[in-house]
Amino acid sequence: MSPTPVEPMFFIGVDIGRTIRAALVDESGRIWMQSRVLAERRDPRAFLAQVIAVLSALRDSEIARGRVVAVGIGWPGLVNRQAPRLELASHLVDVTGCDVYGEISEALKLPLVFENEANAAAYGEWTCGAARGLRDVFYVTIGTGIGAALILGGRLQRGAHGFAGEFGHVKVEPRGIECGCGGRGCLETVASGPNIVRRVRERLFSDPAFSLSPLAAQMEGTLTVPLIVQAAFDGDELARVVLRETGRYFGVAIANVLNLLDVEMVCLGGPVMLAGEILLDAVRKAARKYTLRAIFEGCRFTISALGQDAGIIGAALLARDAVATMAFE
Amino acid sequence: MSPTPVEPMFFIGVDIGRTIRAALVDESGRIWMQSRVLAERRDPRAFLAQVIAVLSALRDSEIARGRVVAVGIGWPGLVNRQAPRLELASHLVDVTGCDVYGEISEALKLPLVFENEANAAAYGEWTCGAARGLRDVFYVTIGTGIGAALILGGRLQRGAHGFAGEFGHVKVEPRGIECGCGGRGCLETVASGPNIVRRVRERLFSDPAFSLSPLAAQMEGTLTVPLIVQAAFDGDELARVVLRETGRYFGVAIANVLNLLDVEMVCLGGPVMLAGEILLDAVRKAARKYTLRAIFEGCRFTISALGQDAGIIGAALLARDAVATMAFE
Repeated sequence: MSPTPVEPMFFIGVDIGRTIRAALVDESGRIWMQSRVLAERRDPRAFLAQVIAVLSALRDSEIARGRVVAVGIGWPGLVNRQAPRLELASHLVDVTGCDVYGEISEALKLPLVFENEANAAAYGEWTCGAARGLRDVFYVTIGTGIGAALILGGRLQRGAHGFAGEFGHVKVEPRGIECGCGGRGCLETVASGPNIVRRVRERLFSDPAFSLSPLAAQMEGTLTVPLIVQAAFDGDELARVVLRETGRYFGVAIANVLNLLDVEMVCLGGPVMLAGEILLDAVRKAARKYTLRAIFEGCRFTISALGQDAGIIGAALLARDAVATMAFE
Repeated sequence: MSPTPVEPMFFIGVDIGRTIRAALVDESGRIWMQSRVLAERRDPRAFLAQVIAVLSALRDSEIARGRVVAVGIGWPGLVNRQAPRLELASHLVDVTGCDVYGEISEALKLPLVFENEANAAAYGEWTCGAARGLRDVFYVTIGTGIGAALILGGRLQRGAHGFAGEFGHVKVEPRGIECGCGGRGCLETVASGPNIVRRVRERLFSDPAFSLSPLAAQMEGTLTVPLIVQAAFDGDELARVVLRETGRYFGVAIANVLNLLDVEMVCLGGPVMLAGEILLDAVRKAARKYTLRAIFEGCRFTISALGQDAGIIGAALLARDAVATMAFE
């Protein structure tokens, strides 16, 4: 990929998860160069050094040629835009003792925008993906955790303190298991990636009918969502049952959101959406059952168009739009 | 009340329920004159004639002196702003066969704005009541039905088709009773005014411990929410138990909304909020239990400041603001 005659301006978009993924993105949302590194999970200082190294390398790259304007970081956890206070999701390193914002911006000497990762991915889908041009969108990301973002009235809605979209902690099982948040029966406790795996394991233990599932062979090894999804594609009943149930949980929870928000589109993204139509169908069916008809009929259900790049592209374009409006924190 | 030296401009605000209530409201939201009439519930044409008569009388009144600029109508049901299609709540007359908008605007010769009644009341609280000056508010009205409205990012959010806020149909009892909407276990089936009465009756039938409740004497007569609220104020345990349970249902449902929207204020209005702190306390306690701490701590719970005038004032000020922006349907 060589630069076009009119040289583009670049933004760096970052998606922080178990892998730190970053890219040089141009003004139209096109990715020119990507890099990734497995996130350090014990030492917060080493983690910060990683982030800074990845970003510096992109900024100083041949392709960027000094034309990086700003950096957008999709952050997996609460982003308090007023403090600004950052907390990482519990499956990552604890950075509450570090001045994340100060250190990264000091090292890079570039304007910096932090955004909750689900908001960043939704922004990507909205500006150049499945939800382009719409005004009212509910975006859900399903992975290790469950996040969500709201575009309402043509604006990304972050809530009063930037905490909006904590959809993973919607209660779906009144007598369900305990969640890391201190609550019980949260959507995340049944429908996140690790909990889909847990439910498959439980079925394998408790239901002899499933002993012939190819997934039974994985019991001692590493059972993962991609393996479960592959088994479902291959027609395995256990995998299909658990994914359909998962879709039902989402559908019920999404129906409540639809009744409340009357959006035009529900867009589902994140790694678990590898499952594609199997999951989407089950979500749609359950949502239809619990949503007022006029609202359901006005809403499309779709899978993320940008896939795992949604967060990177969205973060970069949030940085682009913050530059345009001078709205840095 | 005589006109001030600088003569005000007037807007008519209307709140349609079992009673049609209307008022002359000035630009600042002050009510100058009110009128009300019990709504015709069988004949849609008679109902329309009533609405027109009430509005014409206000428009032609001595106080208005020909200075009515526009009319805002809070409508208890879905207001499809695109069609425009109007449906009345099921406890009122069926007007789907009438051109409600056309006939009222033809008769009055004034610009006309329809808004869902919960949106209108929320707009009242937001512009001159409990939520004045805030940007992110969740308003819930509890009466014969349950409605809600969202102010997010400093704007009233109506959803893609104007149907947002159907909070009464959020599912709170997976195995609950059937609802008029076709669903099951909706919040409205346990926590609306008539269902609070139903639950008190059921307790009286099934639990001998409550046979001494003063409400037992009302079993054969007309048991109403005001009677139940009065009994609760007088210390009756049955009334208090049922109101606390009601608050818990709301609190659980509101917690899900808070986790999703991160608002600054939950404002509770509508006739059932006569119950005041008894209900509000129970709502707050349950919400605290199920809301992420950072979100709960950033949110105030309060009771409507305008009471039963919220809808009238809000409708009038929606008309005022539609005139200002020429945003008539």
